[in-house]
Amino acid sequence: MAVDANMDTNNSLNTLFYPKTIAVVGASPDGDPFRWGGKTFIEGLVKQNYRGKVYPVHPKADTVLGLKAYRSVDEVPDEVDLAIFSVPASAVMGVMADCVKKRVKFVHIFTAGFSETGLEDRAKLESDMATLAREGGVRVVGPNCMGVYCPDGGVAWVKDFPSESGPVAFVSQSGQLAGHFIEVGKPRGITFSKVISYGNASDLQCHDFLKYLADDEKTKVIGSYIEGLKDGRAFFEMAKKLTVRKPLVVWKGGQTEGGSRAVSSHTASIAGSRHLWRALCRQTGIISVDSIEELAATIVALQDLTPPKGPNVAIVGGAGGGSVTMTDAAERAGLKVPHLSEATIRGLEEFVPVHGQSVKNPLDIFSVLVNPDHFSRMIAFLRDDPLVDALIYMQRAEWALRRERVFLEVAVRMTIEGARELKKPLFLILTGGQTLEGDILRREAQQRYAHAGIPTFPTFDEAAQAAYNLSEYQRYLTLRL
Amino acid sequence: MAVDANMDTNNSLNTLFYPKTIAVVGASPDGDPFRWGGKTFIEGLVKQNYRGKVYPVHPKADTVLGLKAYRSVDEVPDEVDLAIFSVPASAVMGVMADCVKKRVKFVHIFTAGFSETGLEDRAKLESDMATLAREGGVRVVGPNCMGVYCPDGGVAWVKDFPSESGPVAFVSQSGQLAGHFIEVGKPRGITFSKVISYGNASDLQCHDFLKYLADDEKTKVIGSYIEGLKDGRAFFEMAKKLTVRKPLVVWKGGQTEGGSRAVSSHTASIAGSRHLWRALCRQTGIISVDSIEELAATIVALQDLTPPKGPNVAIVGGAGGGSVTMTDAAERAGLKVPHLSEATIRGLEEFVPVHGQSVKNPLDIFSVLVNPDHFSRMIAFLRDDPLVDALIYMQRAEWALRRERVFLEVAVRMTIEGARELKKPLFLILTGGQTLEGDILRREAQQRYAHAGIPTFPTFDEAAQAAYNLSEYQRYLTLRL
Repeated sequence: MAVDANMDTNNSLNTLFYPKTIAVVGASPDGDPFRWGGKTFIEGLVKQNYRGKVYPVHPKADTVLGLKAYRSVDEVPDEVDLAIFSVPASAVMGVMADCVKKRVKFVHIFTAGFSETGLEDRAKLESDMATLAREGGVRVVGPNCMGVYCPDGGVAWVKDFPSESGPVAFVSQSGQLAGHFIEVGKPRGITFSKVISYGNASDLQCHDFLKYLADDEKTKVIGSYIEGLKDGRAFFEMAKKLTVRKPLVVWKGGQTEGGSRAVSSHTASIAGSRHLWRALCRQTGIISVDSIEELAATIVALQDLTPPKGPNVAIVGGAGGGSVTMTDAAERAGLKVPHLSEATIRGLEEFVPVHGQSVKNPLDIFSVLVNPDHFSRMIAFLRDDPLVDALIYMQRAEWALRRERVFLEVAVRMTIEGARELKKPLFLILTGGQTLEGDILRREAQQRYAHAGIPTFPTFDEAAQAAYNLSEYQRYLTLRL
Repeated sequence: MAVDANMDTNNSLNTLFYPKTIAVVGASPDGDPFRWGGKTFIEGLVKQNYRGKVYPVHPKADTVLGLKAYRSVDEVPDEVDLAIFSVPASAVMGVMADCVKKRVKFVHIFTAGFSETGLEDRAKLESDMATLAREGGVRVVGPNCMGVYCPDGGVAWVKDFPSESGPVAFVSQSGQLAGHFIEVGKPRGITFSKVISYGNASDLQCHDFLKYLADDEKTKVIGSYIEGLKDGRAFFEMAKKLTVRKPLVVWKGGQTEGGSRAVSSHTASIAGSRHLWRALCRQTGIISVDSIEELAATIVALQDLTPPKGPNVAIVGGAGGGSVTMTDAAERAGLKVPHLSEATIRGLEEFVPVHGQSVKNPLDIFSVLVNPDHFSRMIAFLRDDPLVDALIYMQRAEWALRRERVFLEVAVRMTIEGARELKKPLFLILTGGQTLEGDILRREAQQRYAHAGIPTFPTFDEAAQAAYNLSEYQRYLTLRL
């Protein structure tokens, strides 16, 4: 049966991410350029160099952004892989009936005003619409969401999303957070294979997307923002299967009383208890994060680094109180800042002047950080030290402002070289945002590092959280496998 | 007796912050410009337009940076209020003997290599030196520290510290963190009355400085970084007296096992237990913070805002998932995001289109944030709502990049106006650092806000922590008074 074949999510989602034809329903030629709607969706496709065909659908317009417009979906003279709905909620049933008739494969319903309003008639409209689609063999993303970003497929909901493709997928119940995460990820060097904003999840749900991404060769790391699960069991089973193959990082919204209330007016979800969520993460190997900063830090670390074998870190780059507080932050995050092995300490003592410095962990050894030869010797000792699983290194771009610029150049080169020699993950904190001048230097260095595949973190706390999250994931895998 | 009079910390510390004459001992004319030493201390004084007299002391040089140099402190043809020691540890006893002879009032010992090395003979040298000073009536800051920054008095240890004076004092056992905090504070609009880096605390200790600052009219808010207390009882009594007059924010280093070890090699302090520290804070009304970010956020909030009367906040400026996660972060920080009063909800409903928005708390009302008239009406409702103690508002400077620049101009003006009308504290988050272009806009807006006395926070977590810390301090005061 055609309907059943279409229900095989794994094959069919490919068409969602790589549609050959897209109808944009409700694309008014006079749309406000600052409000999302049919017109801005078309602009996103044009800007992303989408290679398929775009068919605007509008009851009156002849053309939209130079493209010939059609009166309804079933008048489009082509098969339709994906239809984007940007019409009033009251028009959704009619447009869906056209899509069923036309045998459209996927629809993405941008329109809001359904179950998330808390109104009974609106919730009923959503479920009627979902039933109509299901019975007609049409798969639905949404309603109340931004849909799909797949740079590879030339699909995006915002015209200035990066067109570069990469190994990170993000499955988000919130379109706003999905967009924000893409923005935040860009300067950090996070690049995406697929991003989905799925809103009220009237049909396709988080676990459907995870199932597809588990097999997607272009995806190596998966992040997710979830407000509520309609089918907790299916999610649990899917996550458990997924995490032994690829890491899954989840930011769960609605973990507090107030947040849980907000969830119900946002996507009509039931947030569930914080304790249950924590237990689910422990059992499935999900890495749970609590902020956009921790999400970005953990994802970029998974994208670029091999997880540390354990929680033991060496800390370098602080001085005095900086070393003390970095150590506190590391241990508070769950890491250990252990004694170094005797061989390392004796080795370092050979070239580190003891005055005002310390070869104990945290290493307070400024003289080493400005001397490429000493730095490389330090790296070799840490590489060979079995008591060290990873290195956390704080580098201040603004120091270069006080010296010649070449100082930063030397520091960047020696750090890239050191990261290669270390053979253990390097969590590099790069600061410098206090002055605009310092920030420009920081951005330059950050780009050089990203280009060399070295992630950078803006604060020590983020680096420590990422290191801990990766080491815990590694521990889960070791116990599991 | 002269010695006893000098021991009256409160009178005498004034001379430390506003010395009329400073001898810099160990000011080599050929000092490395990138290493702190006698020469860089003199440069700091010159750049800060220090109005007193500076006397370089050097065994061989005739002049240092154009100033006539003397062979020893007792050859200086003037009274000496403050002598800065930048000499090898082995020379400190001799120089101190000269200072006693010369009846120098204060010495700041920059020199390291004493008890913090963990070596017995070095610890003995420190205590011998402290005894010599005490018996000779000389008060000592340090050793192993950066000394004093007092823009009002023209005293600074770095030439590029701001010369502007302000209401914040910072008492730090670590010179590195003191300098870092001054840097971090600058773009946030934190300005300083006095900053002290006091290192090993061989004589003057944290509570001595707090005692002075309690009475200092130029100081309204006090921050501190502490690794260990030599006289916990004196600190406890002082803090308890101080906090009913001025807020005291403390970042305690060495609260973890690794951090505690690091503390002993940094300032030879004994860090003490985390639990004892927490109990001490509860009993004394100290606001305890755990990172440079939380320290800066809390201090700038205390500098510019009246503490909220309670923990109930309204949240504005998120959208969708942003609202949900901001609410989670607020409640996780200890705040409450309560239902708004009926009057507020009914009032907002009059002009907020319900479609895709929410007048529940968190307020998801984008249309209001781009309409000065609606914004001002919203502010009036929140001002009059007895269920709301403070407003947390997230503003994204990068939105202005998508629209015309005038958009940001309007937003800034209407926010400054709104903050005035609110009559409750406004915790404003200002983001925009993803692109350099956005960051430049953010810095512009931040300056305008700082000029209007409105603090801004770079992340939601920081704003929430600051709001919670202030509301807890207010609660302490209410119970205490």
